[in-house]
Amino acid sequence: MSSYTENKDDLLKRLRRIEGQVRGIQRMIEEDQYCVDVLVQIAAVRAALYKVGFNILQNHAHGCVMKAIRAEEEAGDQAIDELLDVIFRFTK
Amino acid sequence: MSSYTENKDDLLKRLRRIEGQVRGIQRMIEEDQYCVDVLVQIAAVRAALYKVGFNILQNHAHGCVMKAIRAEEEAGDQAIDELLDVIFRFTK
Amino acid sequence: MSSYTENKDDLLKRLRRIEGQVRGIQRMIEEDQYCVDVLVQIAAVRAALYKVGFNILQNHAHGCVMKAIRAEEEAGDQAIDELLDVIFRFTK
Amino acid sequence: MSSYTENKDDLLKRLRRIEGQVRGIQRMIEEDQYCVDVLVQIAAVRAALYKVGFNILQNHAHGCVMKAIRAEEEAGDQAIDELLDVIFRFTK
Repeated sequence: MSSYTENKDDLLKRLRRIEGQVRGIQRMIEEDQYCVDVLVQIAAVRAALYKVGFNILQNHAHGCVMKAIRAEEEAGDQAIDELLDVIFRFTK
Repeated sequence: MSSYTENKDDLLKRLRRIEGQVRGIQRMIEEDQYCVDVLVQIAAVRAALYKVGFNILQNHAHGCVMKAIRAEEEAGDQAIDELLDVIFRFTK
Repeated sequence: MSSYTENKDDLLKRLRRIEGQVRGIQRMIEEDQYCVDVLVQIAAVRAALYKVGFNILQNHAHGCVMKAIRAEEEAGDQAIDELLDVIFRFTK
Repeated sequence: MSSYTENKDDLLKRLRRIEGQVRGIQRMIEEDQYCVDVLVQIAAVRAALYKVGFNILQNHAHGCVMKAIRAEEEAGDQAIDELLDVIFRFTK
């Protein structure tokens, strides 16, 4: 079960836009556009992916993690460790 | 003119793989897969984009920036400022 | 109440070492040492502070946050929001 | 020779303030203050160090790096590599 079910449509719309932006970067490179302009676009896609991830993360923390903590001691500790682990992987 | 002309094919191949990964994340969300698995995939795509950008950045610094610095005082200072600006935008 | 009471001595020892490193950077600048060497030292202090913070963060998540979530619905949601907020402030 | 000679006094003033902030964090821990407040302070010190480093970095890029690039081909490439390396160490 996932905690993002409610805003699934919004997430999918954003990811389709990101897919289009990645194709746009390919076109820029094929057309030999200026390095800095390509880099600015790559930074924009990374920022957009960050926002999508942050949204999923928030829902996960308020959904799955809270449920696990309320269920039992050990499951809660595991959920917290998993949460911190994925956040630090994500913010690197 | 761009400084990445030599490894254009490699960059395009990597960006096509990234495009496929973004489609993969859409599928994961459609199938309601576990939040943490989706987040790990988003982190992987961000890391792959970072590597593509870093490659372009290195070529840019050794190519365009050095050329501008050798050309004249003012162009060199501008190229350095633009380089630092895009790096910090990129590493955010 | 804090969640780091158990490893207070270790945290204080590490912070005293960090204080010494900051003084060391001042000396490097007074002696006009090479910019890159100063920057490497600043990066080291930032990394050391990150580790201290991460340690406090882990104890906080397993301590205060879990307690708040078990106590009542609203307190739990607030603790999760505060946790995510401080993590993203911290990883910037 | 360093590229930050001109704003040495400003850098030293900022580093003395940072040293004081690190001592302040030690006091907070000794007094068992709330984890999140300690974390906010650690984030503030990391941000202050980042600004000091960025300042040194800018002067270095416009000073030492440009001089090396103008001096000879190989020294310029080395200076660029060293610059990129320290930036990515620094922004981690």
